[in-house]
Amino acid sequence: MATHKLLLLPGDGIGVEVMQEVKKLIAWLEKRGVASFALEEDLVGGAAYDAHKVSITDAAMARANAADAIIFGAVGGPKWDNVVYEQRPEAGLLRLRKELDLFANLRPAIVYPALADSSSLKREIVEGLDILIVRELTGGTYFGEPKEIVTLENGQQRAVDTQVYTTSEIERIASVAFELARVRKNLVHSAEKRNVMKSGLLWNQVVTRTHAAKFPDVKLEHILADNCAMQLVRNPKQFDVLVTDNLFGDILSDAASMLTGSLGMLPSASLGAEDRATGKRKAMYEPVHGSAPDITGKGLANPIAQIGSFGMALRYSLGLVEVADAIERSIARVLQQGHRTADIAALGEKTISTTEMGDAIIAAL
Amino acid sequence: MATHKLLLLPGDGIGVEVMQEVKKLIAWLEKRGVASFALEEDLVGGAAYDAHKVSITDAAMARANAADAIIFGAVGGPKWDNVVYEQRPEAGLLRLRKELDLFANLRPAIVYPALADSSSLKREIVEGLDILIVRELTGGTYFGEPKEIVTLENGQQRAVDTQVYTTSEIERIASVAFELARVRKNLVHSAEKRNVMKSGLLWNQVVTRTHAAKFPDVKLEHILADNCAMQLVRNPKQFDVLVTDNLFGDILSDAASMLTGSLGMLPSASLGAEDRATGKRKAMYEPVHGSAPDITGKGLANPIAQIGSFGMALRYSLGLVEVADAIERSIARVLQQGHRTADIAALGEKTISTTEMGDAIIAAL
Ligand SMILES: CC(C)[C@H](C(=O)O)[C@@H](O)C(=O)O
Ligand SMILES: CC(C)[C@H](C(=O)O)[C@@H](O)C(=O)O
Repeated sequence: MATHKLLLLPGDGIGVEVMQEVKKLIAWLEKRGVASFALEEDLVGGAAYDAHKVSITDAAMARANAADAIIFGAVGGPKWDNVVYEQRPEAGLLRLRKELDLFANLRPAIVYPALADSSSLKREIVEGLDILIVRELTGGTYFGEPKEIVTLENGQQRAVDTQVYTTSEIERIASVAFELARVRKNLVHSAEKRNVMKSGLLWNQVVTRTHAAKFPDVKLEHILADNCAMQLVRNPKQFDVLVTDNLFGDILSDAASMLTGSLGMLPSASLGAEDRATGKRKAMYEPVHGSAPDITGKGLANPIAQIGSFGMALRYSLGLVEVADAIERSIARVLQQGHRTADIAALGEKTISTTEMGDAIIAAL
Repeated sequence: MATHKLLLLPGDGIGVEVMQEVKKLIAWLEKRGVASFALEEDLVGGAAYDAHKVSITDAAMARANAADAIIFGAVGGPKWDNVVYEQRPEAGLLRLRKELDLFANLRPAIVYPALADSSSLKREIVEGLDILIVRELTGGTYFGEPKEIVTLENGQQRAVDTQVYTTSEIERIASVAFELARVRKNLVHSAEKRNVMKSGLLWNQVVTRTHAAKFPDVKLEHILADNCAMQLVRNPKQFDVLVTDNLFGDILSDAASMLTGSLGMLPSASLGAEDRATGKRKAMYEPVHGSAPDITGKGLANPIAQIGSFGMALRYSLGLVEVADAIERSIARVLQQGHRTADIAALGEKTISTTEMGDAIIAAL
């Protein structure tokens, strides 16, 4: 049996708590002889800063580079608000994305049948919702230079961020979106602000060309990012795959995930390019939710997004599709049985803790 | 009786149709001797391009500069998709904003009691919603330089947009937000991405300082823009005034306006700085909705946002508060009476046309 090299990076806040449930699940899988893992664990974010004064160490980066898959928790919190900008918790996450070239961030927004009523949207608007947001993750405003605050002669400060995209960056993310659409409903929306941004204009043109050259069989719609935000609220089921840049993807995927009413449920995958020689790609899996400092340490966190992220790693990086299927079925089952953490409970419904939810999922396997 | 200088810029698409209803209302007010207007009208957007090959002429800009208030319709449409970037329809709008220094864009998101069921959100989530988004309108990614597409040596193209903010730009928009909060629920949320953008970091710091120095009586909360998008969907009533930059404001205000389920209902105001000598400020009033090419020419557009924008002009620029009150009461009355254009009609409800809605509002005055 192949041994799979996993790096766990729990990070901060509830990241640590939900990762604990993944560790329990891994131990269970190993004990049952279902799969074999070489587990490593390291610090990232505020936790790394507290220990090493950097948001991620070079040693941890080396481990990340060597892993078959990385399971990431969450980073950040008010404790580190005054840390120097370059070592703020988020910098560790951004370094991982950039140095591993994890350019394709896949963020599903799925309404689980058992939870269709926990959305703030009307049931008929969200029932059966299944959108996949494909967010470019290594370019745009996040990484463009200059990125600085300078003090002017008049004493004023001036802050600059730079949004940069090149043809090849847009081509490769668009191709991922079109390929995914082919195994879904064959529809891609591409969102940008071509009416005010030159990067939006180039984005639009390159997506159009990529489509015509390689994916004419997929239906393509262009949509302005502001209208997209609106349509996500008005009628989200019109979307299948939505491809967009790093910053719009950040905002639109958070809005989309909230349509499902269950932020604690949603996993994500960040993928690099396929290595021509090995056919492998670097990959990091993380829940869409953040470190949630407000509920940290209370046993309130929902571990399903983190466990689901681990499941995605099994499926997409480790070739353990059947185990991934089993985990997903088990999650569906515990929801059907009425198990609820606080974030997905209806008013007055009985809730269980992070650990109890982890236990329930293992028990249902 | 003072004569008020108004410039009407209907623009493109349904902009022309809904402005027609404002003209009818103005004629009615003049005939009744309620107020006296010196009306001018000019082209902007695609209409200006078709006539003059520019998205707004210098002559129209001069009229805009001389007006007491500008009533703007909407611009854009697929017809002008291939127009040179500098003269695309939106450029006319951006030039007006920038040259008149209309830095404060006020976008209310209000749920009208008669329409609480037309939102895609559950009634209890949106009932009574009354948010004011204060969007910075003359800075950020919209106007920063460089803004260009260059061809690299390897044949690739590289697009750049630049997000720039200075201390004073942030100070003045924050002050507008705090002042407005004082006459509302005394709560300001400031949204940025300080965790990835230097402009977000400066924004956060300057808002904090402005608050401490001049508005300590107002409650201030900082929120990350992605979380803000999420919270707007999850529980929008937690917000009162939301201040944010040009690009986030564009996206978040569109999402917020859709919470109300009635995009055709929402007016907005774009205000310049107060002239120290005269106490006046330049101002442009426009509906939040766009030119809606898909429904243009069908009599389907809802004129209420445009009429409401005219009402805001009466109130804030022309000192005609009682007339503005009367118009707002009249709008509320026709809604109460069950008059609905298609955008705000429930399934199966009888709908009326743009003109009929305009007539109904005048009849109810
Ligand atoms: C933590 C933060 C840097 C990050 C981002 O902005 O990308 C987060 O919001 C996300 O969406 O993964
Ligand atoms: C038409 C377009 C340039 C404009 C913007 O992006 O500001 C519009 O979306 C708006 O919000 O007023």
